[in-house]
Amino acid sequence: MTETAVRDALRAQRIEVPSWAYGNSGTRFKVFSQPGVPRTPEEKIADAAQVHAFTGVAPIVSLHIPWDRVDDFAKLGSYAAEQGVRIGTINTNVFQDDDYRLGSVTNPDPRIRRKALGHLLECVDIMDATGSADLKLWFSDGTNYPGQDDIRARQDRLAEALAATYERLGDDQRMLLEYKLFEPAFYMTDVPDWGTAYAHCLKLGEKAQVVIDTGHHAPGTNIEFIVAFLLREGKLGAFDFNSRFYADDDLMVGAADPFQLFRIMYEIVRADALRPDSGVNFMLDQCHNIEPKIPAQIRSVMNVQEATAKALLVDAEALAAAQTAGDVLGANGVLMDAYDTDVRPLLREVRADLGLDPEPMAAYARSGYAQRIAAERVGGQQAGWGA
Amino acid sequence: MTETAVRDALRAQRIEVPSWAYGNSGTRFKVFSQPGVPRTPEEKIADAAQVHAFTGVAPIVSLHIPWDRVDDFAKLGSYAAEQGVRIGTINTNVFQDDDYRLGSVTNPDPRIRRKALGHLLECVDIMDATGSADLKLWFSDGTNYPGQDDIRARQDRLAEALAATYERLGDDQRMLLEYKLFEPAFYMTDVPDWGTAYAHCLKLGEKAQVVIDTGHHAPGTNIEFIVAFLLREGKLGAFDFNSRFYADDDLMVGAADPFQLFRIMYEIVRADALRPDSGVNFMLDQCHNIEPKIPAQIRSVMNVQEATAKALLVDAEALAAAQTAGDVLGANGVLMDAYDTDVRPLLREVRADLGLDPEPMAAYARSGYAQRIAAERVGGQQAGWGA
Amino acid sequence: MTETAVRDALRAQRIEVPSWAYGNSGTRFKVFSQPGVPRTPEEKIADAAQVHAFTGVAPIVSLHIPWDRVDDFAKLGSYAAEQGVRIGTINTNVFQDDDYRLGSVTNPDPRIRRKALGHLLECVDIMDATGSADLKLWFSDGTNYPGQDDIRARQDRLAEALAATYERLGDDQRMLLEYKLFEPAFYMTDVPDWGTAYAHCLKLGEKAQVVIDTGHHAPGTNIEFIVAFLLREGKLGAFDFNSRFYADDDLMVGAADPFQLFRIMYEIVRADALRPDSGVNFMLDQCHNIEPKIPAQIRSVMNVQEATAKALLVDAEALAAAQTAGDVLGANGVLMDAYDTDVRPLLREVRADLGLDPEPMAAYARSGYAQRIAAERVGGQQAGWGA
Amino acid sequence: MTETAVRDALRAQRIEVPSWAYGNSGTRFKVFSQPGVPRTPEEKIADAAQVHAFTGVAPIVSLHIPWDRVDDFAKLGSYAAEQGVRIGTINTNVFQDDDYRLGSVTNPDPRIRRKALGHLLECVDIMDATGSADLKLWFSDGTNYPGQDDIRARQDRLAEALAATYERLGDDQRMLLEYKLFEPAFYMTDVPDWGTAYAHCLKLGEKAQVVIDTGHHAPGTNIEFIVAFLLREGKLGAFDFNSRFYADDDLMVGAADPFQLFRIMYEIVRADALRPDSGVNFMLDQCHNIEPKIPAQIRSVMNVQEATAKALLVDAEALAAAQTAGDVLGANGVLMDAYDTDVRPLLREVRADLGLDPEPMAAYARSGYAQRIAAERVGGQQAGWGA
Repeated sequence: MTETAVRDALRAQRIEVPSWAYGNSGTRFKVFSQPGVPRTPEEKIADAAQVHAFTGVAPIVSLHIPWDRVDDFAKLGSYAAEQGVRIGTINTNVFQDDDYRLGSVTNPDPRIRRKALGHLLECVDIMDATGSADLKLWFSDGTNYPGQDDIRARQDRLAEALAATYERLGDDQRMLLEYKLFEPAFYMTDVPDWGTAYAHCLKLGEKAQVVIDTGHHAPGTNIEFIVAFLLREGKLGAFDFNSRFYADDDLMVGAADPFQLFRIMYEIVRADALRPDSGVNFMLDQCHNIEPKIPAQIRSVMNVQEATAKALLVDAEALAAAQTAGDVLGANGVLMDAYDTDVRPLLREVRADLGLDPEPMAAYARSGYAQRIAAERVGGQQAGWGA
Repeated sequence: MTETAVRDALRAQRIEVPSWAYGNSGTRFKVFSQPGVPRTPEEKIADAAQVHAFTGVAPIVSLHIPWDRVDDFAKLGSYAAEQGVRIGTINTNVFQDDDYRLGSVTNPDPRIRRKALGHLLECVDIMDATGSADLKLWFSDGTNYPGQDDIRARQDRLAEALAATYERLGDDQRMLLEYKLFEPAFYMTDVPDWGTAYAHCLKLGEKAQVVIDTGHHAPGTNIEFIVAFLLREGKLGAFDFNSRFYADDDLMVGAADPFQLFRIMYEIVRADALRPDSGVNFMLDQCHNIEPKIPAQIRSVMNVQEATAKALLVDAEALAAAQTAGDVLGANGVLMDAYDTDVRPLLREVRADLGLDPEPMAAYARSGYAQRIAAERVGGQQAGWGA
Repeated sequence: MTETAVRDALRAQRIEVPSWAYGNSGTRFKVFSQPGVPRTPEEKIADAAQVHAFTGVAPIVSLHIPWDRVDDFAKLGSYAAEQGVRIGTINTNVFQDDDYRLGSVTNPDPRIRRKALGHLLECVDIMDATGSADLKLWFSDGTNYPGQDDIRARQDRLAEALAATYERLGDDQRMLLEYKLFEPAFYMTDVPDWGTAYAHCLKLGEKAQVVIDTGHHAPGTNIEFIVAFLLREGKLGAFDFNSRFYADDDLMVGAADPFQLFRIMYEIVRADALRPDSGVNFMLDQCHNIEPKIPAQIRSVMNVQEATAKALLVDAEALAAAQTAGDVLGANGVLMDAYDTDVRPLLREVRADLGLDPEPMAAYARSGYAQRIAAERVGGQQAGWGA
Repeated sequence: MTETAVRDALRAQRIEVPSWAYGNSGTRFKVFSQPGVPRTPEEKIADAAQVHAFTGVAPIVSLHIPWDRVDDFAKLGSYAAEQGVRIGTINTNVFQDDDYRLGSVTNPDPRIRRKALGHLLECVDIMDATGSADLKLWFSDGTNYPGQDDIRARQDRLAEALAATYERLGDDQRMLLEYKLFEPAFYMTDVPDWGTAYAHCLKLGEKAQVVIDTGHHAPGTNIEFIVAFLLREGKLGAFDFNSRFYADDDLMVGAADPFQLFRIMYEIVRADALRPDSGVNFMLDQCHNIEPKIPAQIRSVMNVQEATAKALLVDAEALAAAQTAGDVLGANGVLMDAYDTDVRPLLREVRADLGLDPEPMAAYARSGYAQRIAAERVGGQQAGWGA
């Protein structure tokens, strides 16, 4: 790839940020509140817009319903546009009502299943209002004890709800199905792995695609294999980016294993799926429990950019030659040459090309935004997972 | 072991229950409330007393400070006695104050370290008031990102706080140090494994002992090895029993891997550490997120009893003979013979000997206690991790 | 299920044993040889026949090519019949030739891919000769280093080889595709999980089915979920039974986690897939590195029988009622009641019904077979993985 | 640290290479032989000397007994000196004799324990002859099945053998005890974790130190924590460097997770333990199953150098300031700044300073050594784990 092509690709890259990253989050042990945390969807969007303002590649904000429910979504969209961003994926939430103690769409109780499905369909209504193209489905459904419920019957119920939701999608709308190994269910999760999500999506049709959350796998899982496999099948719809050392830690993407993130982005580049129109949505999904949220999002975007830049720098021709020759160390060496490169100077230039400060973290710190929101956002209820 | 000795051991067995198991608990995603959940330390003790009333082997209740702080601990002790139980271990909590965002006793800020130490010392005061023999220390301290703090400096701070607390202990008081691999810290935990806890306890002295929480290990860890090793070293102070499939799931002990629980109890029996005066404290530490709490505690006590009964039934002589002979399948077979035995009839007899209903779950269900507390405990603030 | 139905099911159960379990095996550190180990396919079959003679449910022997290649497979089949058993699945081996250093069917070198495919096709020829219905495919193919080869190109090559083999199958022949997370490949494996195997089998057609080797998963994987899911999809072709604490330990099935084996067998029973004509093949695939091989196989068969008996004893009606009612502890209790039952007396009766000694281990030990083969099998080359 | 100090440290760094890395190795599935593989200890040393010749920091070769047993170790030492290297650590092997099927120093059979101890003592004799300072002890001892042997009794036997060996050490000799979670033992390993090794070493005395093999941990273990902890305790004696994605994969160090290697080296630098006289021995212990061995060793040395260079570049003052201030992102950012730096130019300069070619891989490839040994080493028995 020519250097121009690399820069073009980096300038065109799009990373979606989640509205909930700017609210409070934590563990079951404690949610630490932070000064200046948003209290409304508008304030979340304003914060998200800061991330785009300083990075230039994050102009899309995902919403989470009901956390971001407003009376007038068109108005929220206009507000977003004023801030320089737009509304992206609609994320459903069927895990925070007392009714969902034993599951939502897979609950043994048909009344609760209907309620959950109603929420999913409502979210498609919201998509119509916001012009969102993607509906993200993550189900916390599962069981905590062997025998608690019937594994197979729950699949039947899941399939039914997915089909009903799929049916409701408009022509330009997609359904993105996320899998997760465990948490909050601790024995069995109804969509635990990519195979399950893939099998359901395959039956539903082309508008159903799989979401890879990089923190939702068993230890030792080779995530870039899944990326490559789903791309080959035309079934990779989106990423939820974050990083983890142990479970679903939801740390900043690239913080735990930057080499893994590079390998993932390499598979994206190799399959020409970086293009904004590739059908793959690159979203952050993280919890900034102890660090300030806007800087953490900026840093995360930068981490994705660095991994991408390195992936773009892989000498594809040399790599293919070494691979074909069975030159194990040579092929590995080509990949590592790109990874070992310091791409920060290149990214500083890309930012300058975009008319941005080459150092987003420092520029944001200097902007005084953090101090301003801390001073202004007094009173009210800080946003968090429960609100 | 003669059948009489087995029954004697089972009747004499003591399992400690935690006050917080009767309050609400959950995951970061949702805490589901349940009807009848206690609102005060007294109501928690009353519920714990039910577990003892139906099992006969759970007469001790652990407190958690500040969740169970009362003005008059002597009075709380009298209340417990009236309910037929007594107050046991005092569990400290230095993880739920906003000050502890970056740690408690290992926090880089000396003011916060002093505050955390103050809490530990206050808990020894409470032990004096309750007559508790054991102080349980679990630190959520750690870091989420590489570089966030200095690993070694944090050990220095930890050692200092431990020494100051140890100093404060009375002659008949012990300090029990718990380790945990991760959560809520996601990169590095200051006491992540038994080796760390052991090394600190060794330096502190005889009154410092290690706690094994069965859910706090990396995947694949052989917990019974740690049990055997610490018993050999005279450094096993207590268990926090629960079970897990993935992380620190805090499911009912014995629910995820009953064979593992049996192997653990076998090492206890083999080292003659089941006796109530052995210095090993057997406590439950669980979260009943979706199941009713009192029955879940009863079931957990029963699971420990069943594993213990099987462990007591191991034919020690035959086992030793097969081991000495290098008879791999024979020795494994001796152990499995005990495990494969259905010990429920034996335990029904043990309960009858104690004047109890042989079927604790059914007896509790028939008692109407659940309905009574659901009806009576209206209003007020249900107890939970945050209160 | 009536007691008669339970016994009928246990008598009708069929477990396939692998010829290679009777040869030497070990780890990369050491293969310990044992006296009496077979030197020829015939001697392996003779040993396998002992397992059937003492258990009555293991009349089928899998072959492994080239380890069990003979000039006249019809004659080998007759020999098996004389021993009271028959030849079952044909297992392919494309991992032990120097050519396969960088893979077999996914090798970057087309010459080696052709060679590997030739072996697969030859194995179908052998199936024609033996009358085997199932071709088992396990590929050790993968890479050790990132960049070593192209993940996606290897999938293309894999798909091509699978299609060519599928094409060659006769009307009553099936292709069983096994997946494995890692080993011997240490970075990426070409068929690492059930999703990959499932996706390929789906495209190939009805005669392609997935094999679940119980030791081939990442830590924490819920295997019974995969069983239930594949049965619902009609895509579960076979098991390779064994057990593990860490990696692919290949210990005796049921030895590491008997509760897990029970949960797996429960899903089988629940889907009515225990029947010999269900299309699910239950095979042992184990390495008896330090224990004597024939007794270890007998014990393994017994372990599967015990798990099956417990699964058959689950009170389906009570379970469904508790599940429908959302009674978490009740439903779990129904499952545990079956698991906690001592089914050894029942299995002794089933054996007596079959005209067998109720205690297979003791009966085999008394038979003198072990002493006889140790005395007779002197000289020659003991069978092992390399031969 | 000044740039001069960084270069000085890099020039002074010492990495020990293992004689067995140049022999054949593999998995239980297959050992692929390679052309030119050494047949004698001398040839292994000659190959190891190549690694030093091209990197300048690897002048020490570990021996493995009995694989490297010779009649005259003084002569072998002289041969090494002629090649430009010297003999380092003596590695014991008590896992490859049929007698060790059920263990060596922990075997239930006292005769076998004596034999194993005899080997350990013989290795100290060899140390006397070679002038080696370190005796490396790794025991494959453990059990495959629960009940197979008594966990605690095996600890007693282990302690006895360690004490007898310790007793035999000369004043300037050390004993390095390695731990490993599993393999080849699959249920319980007698020295499974650092805590066990540490506890034994503590009792033995100052000459007993712990070895960290980077591939010997449970998934999710924070290895740099162990490094920091043992350094604080003065008990870290040596590393066995390699890398892994799954189990003990024994890939090239830094190949699987270069960021982890950097974090480990940062703890080394932070504790001033990089100095050759720090008492910490940095050794490679790897298996080059599919890649050529000498280049793989050179690449591994380079990987350690790169991680070290980055660790040396960490701005210690800025890091401490951010840590003290509780600036999570700032502190992490300081660490990442060093990690993100491309240190290959710096290392090229360090090599030039040493009079070496700045590109060791290319220089070795050009040297023709690989072709020469492939041509010359014809006939004889290639070295491997079994010889």
